[in-house]
Amino acid sequence: MDQRRDEPGLRSESVRRANLSSIARELHNTGPLSRSELGARTGLTRSTIRALIGEFAAAGLVSEVGSTSLGTPGRPSVVVTPNGARPTALALEIAVDSIAGAVVGFGGEIRQLRRIERPRGELSLEQTVTDLAALARQLDGFHTRRGDVIGVGVAIVGVVRHSDGLVSLAPNLGWHDVALGQALRQVIGAFVPLSVANEADLGALAETRRGGARGCANVIFISGEVGVGGGLIVDGRPMAGAAGYGGEVGHMPINPEGATCHCGSTGCWETEIGEDALLVKAGRERGGGRSAMDALLRDARAGDATALAALDHIARWLGLGLAGLVNLLNPQRIVLGGRFGRLFPFVVDTIGRQLDRYALDAPRRLVTVVPAELGEDAGLLGAAELAFEPFLSDPATWLKPRSSTLPALASA
Amino acid sequence: MDQRRDEPGLRSESVRRANLSSIARELHNTGPLSRSELGARTGLTRSTIRALIGEFAAAGLVSEVGSTSLGTPGRPSVVVTPNGARPTALALEIAVDSIAGAVVGFGGEIRQLRRIERPRGELSLEQTVTDLAALARQLDGFHTRRGDVIGVGVAIVGVVRHSDGLVSLAPNLGWHDVALGQALRQVIGAFVPLSVANEADLGALAETRRGGARGCANVIFISGEVGVGGGLIVDGRPMAGAAGYGGEVGHMPINPEGATCHCGSTGCWETEIGEDALLVKAGRERGGGRSAMDALLRDARAGDATALAALDHIARWLGLGLAGLVNLLNPQRIVLGGRFGRLFPFVVDTIGRQLDRYALDAPRRLVTVVPAELGEDAGLLGAAELAFEPFLSDPATWLKPRSSTLPALASA
Repeated sequence: MDQRRDEPGLRSESVRRANLSSIARELHNTGPLSRSELGARTGLTRSTIRALIGEFAAAGLVSEVGSTSLGTPGRPSVVVTPNGARPTALALEIAVDSIAGAVVGFGGEIRQLRRIERPRGELSLEQTVTDLAALARQLDGFHTRRGDVIGVGVAIVGVVRHSDGLVSLAPNLGWHDVALGQALRQVIGAFVPLSVANEADLGALAETRRGGARGCANVIFISGEVGVGGGLIVDGRPMAGAAGYGGEVGHMPINPEGATCHCGSTGCWETEIGEDALLVKAGRERGGGRSAMDALLRDARAGDATALAALDHIARWLGLGLAGLVNLLNPQRIVLGGRFGRLFPFVVDTIGRQLDRYALDAPRRLVTVVPAELGEDAGLLGAAELAFEPFLSDPATWLKPRSSTLPALASA
Repeated sequence: MDQRRDEPGLRSESVRRANLSSIARELHNTGPLSRSELGARTGLTRSTIRALIGEFAAAGLVSEVGSTSLGTPGRPSVVVTPNGARPTALALEIAVDSIAGAVVGFGGEIRQLRRIERPRGELSLEQTVTDLAALARQLDGFHTRRGDVIGVGVAIVGVVRHSDGLVSLAPNLGWHDVALGQALRQVIGAFVPLSVANEADLGALAETRRGGARGCANVIFISGEVGVGGGLIVDGRPMAGAAGYGGEVGHMPINPEGATCHCGSTGCWETEIGEDALLVKAGRERGGGRSAMDALLRDARAGDATALAALDHIARWLGLGLAGLVNLLNPQRIVLGGRFGRLFPFVVDTIGRQLDRYALDAPRRLVTVVPAELGEDAGLLGAAELAFEPFLSDPATWLKPRSSTLPALASA
C-alpha cells in the first residue's frame, strides 16, 4: 500500500527548481542578460525573476549591475552576469593527434585551455589516463578551485556507452571495449559526476550552442581528422540513441562497390571521404596525417590541378551522403568541422550542387551548409557543456552551502 | 517597460495542467489503471491523483470503479478507466490503394474504422477531399457526436509540411505542392485542430505506442506499399526535422551505380527495395501492384526458387540500408510494416546477417527486428494519435463546460 504522505510544498518546490533551471540555461547559453530580457525569454514574472536571481546572487553564481541608461527612457534594467569562476566544468578530450583539457565557467567563458600534441597510433588506457590527469593538474582553475568544479566531461574519438563511459570502439587508438569512464573516475576522483561521450556528438552540441548552428533545432555536424565523425541535434537535443552509440555517420554504407572499412564493413562513407581517400586520390601516400593534409591544401590554394580534382572528388561523395542525411533528418544547418572545416572553401560549391541533385526539394530548400566556428576545440567545449548539464537541469542543489572539505586529487 | 502583474496563482495552475497531462497520457497509452499504478507512474501523491481524477470524472472523461480484491490484502485500489466515447479523434488516411477513416476514443479504442479501396494512379485533390469527407460522414462517431471530437489527424503517403499540411511531394498520387491541409479544413470544418503528416511517420508513432515497438524510446519503422516510407522515433518522440520532412529513408543514396529514382536522384534505397525492384527481380512485370505481390508471396511459400531468390536479393539491400540506420540512430527496435511486414518471414534471417556484417557491433547488439503489429492501419491509427496530441498536452481546456452549438459539417 502507498504510505506516502501528501506534501503541499512539493509541487511549488518543483516549480521553483524548474524556474531556476530556465534562468540558468538562459544565462549559460547567452551570457549577461537584463532582468527584463530574462523575463521575456523565460515567461516568468518580474517578482519571480527578482527572487530567483537573488538566490543565484546569494550563492555567488551571478552578479547584478544596474545598466547605464542608453538614452532610452524609463527605469534602467538590472543586468545579470554569470560569475564565470563559479561554478566551472572540467573538460577533457582524447583526440587522434592530441589530448586537451579546459576549465570553462558558467556562461561559457573558457578560463583555461591546454592542448598537447601526441603522435598518432595505439596508446594504452593507462598511459592516456595518466597523461589526462597530469594535464588536469596543470589547469589552475581545476587544481586550486576544485570546490567550484561542477562536473567533468570527456570527449573521445570513439563509440561510447553513455551509462558508464565504456569505449566500445576507438579505431584510431586501437581500443575495443575499454572502460575509460571507470579508469578516469579512479584517477580524477568521483567527487563530481564524470561523463564520457563521442567527440563529434559533443562538437555538434557546442556548435549548436555557441558556434555555426546557434539557434538551430535540427543540425548535422560532420567532423573528424582521420575518419569521419558526426553528431546530430534533433529537436534541440543531442541524438544519442538507445545507449549513446548514435551519430556514426561515417559508417553509413554508401558504395556497395567500395573499399573495405576498418569497421569490418564495405563501402562505408568513411572509405570515400576519409583522410586517406583524399590523399590517395591526390596521388599522395596513405597515412600522411595532418602535415600531408596541410601540404595538399597549400597546393590546392596555389592552383594545383591534381589537388583540386581530388578535393572535388571528395566533395561529390560528401554531398551525396549529406543529401541522404538531409532527406532523413530535415535539418536547418549542416556544420562542417575538423578536417571538413579546413576543406570548406574547396568543397562547398560541389556539396551544394550534390544537394540540389540528390536531396528532395522540400528539405533541400531549408538547409544551409556552413563551416564550424569553434575549430578543433568543438569537441572539448562540448565536453564542458556535457559537464554543465546536471547543474543546468537542477541548479537548486548548488545554491545550498557546500562542504569545503574535498577529497585530494589522486596521483596517477 | 514590463507592465505584467505578478500572478501568484499562475505557477500552481501550470503545475496542475502538467499533472493533468501526465495522467491523461498514462491512461491514453496504457488503458485502465488503478489509482496506485497511476501514482507510481506519474510520481504524484495520492491526494493529487484523487483530486485530478475527480476533475476528469466530473467532465465525463473517465469512470472509476473499486477493483475487486484479488486475494491480496489491504484496501482494493480504485481502477480508473478512460471513457472511450469522449473525447474522440477523427483519423483519415490517403494511402496508395485506398482511403480510410476511423474514430478512436480516449484510451486508444477503435470505435469505428472504414477503408475504401481505390485504384492506384493520379487523383485530383478535389476528388480526394470529396471522397474523404463522404467517408467521414459515414462514421457514426464523427457524425452524431461531433462535440466529442477533439481533433482531426490525416496520414498521407507523401512529404508534408507540418505547419499547414502542404504536401510537397506525393509521387504515387502525382501531387506536388498541394495544399491538402487547407482543402480539408474547408470541407471538414475548422472547429477542431486538423493536422497532416506522413503516413510512415505516423505509423512509427502508432507502432511505438500500441504495436511492435511498445516501450521503446528509439525506433526505426520501415513501411510502404509501392515505395519506401519510414518513420523515426528519437528519445520517445517522433523525429520530424525542421519542417516535418524528416524520415524519408527511401531516399538515402545507397547505390551510386543504381537506377534513376522517381525523385530525380540516382540509386536511392527505394530503387533497390521498392515493389517494382522485387517484382522485376522475380521475373514479373513492373507495376503489378498488390495482386502481383500477393502472387509472388504465394509462390515463395510454395517454394518457388525464383521468388525466394528475389526476396533474398531484396533482403540483402534492406539489411544493408538498415545497418546504416542502426549506426546512425542506435535504435532498440526496427519495425517492418506495410509490404515489408508481409515479406517479414522471408527476409528476417538475411536482414540479421546483413546487420551482423555491416552494422557496428555495439549498436547491432542492442537492436531487434520485428514485424509491425498494426498491419495496414498503422498510419491511420497514428493519425488518431496525432489528433489526440493537443488534448494530451493540455487536457485542462477540455475539463471546462463546452458549447453545445457546433458548426454543421459542410457538404463537399
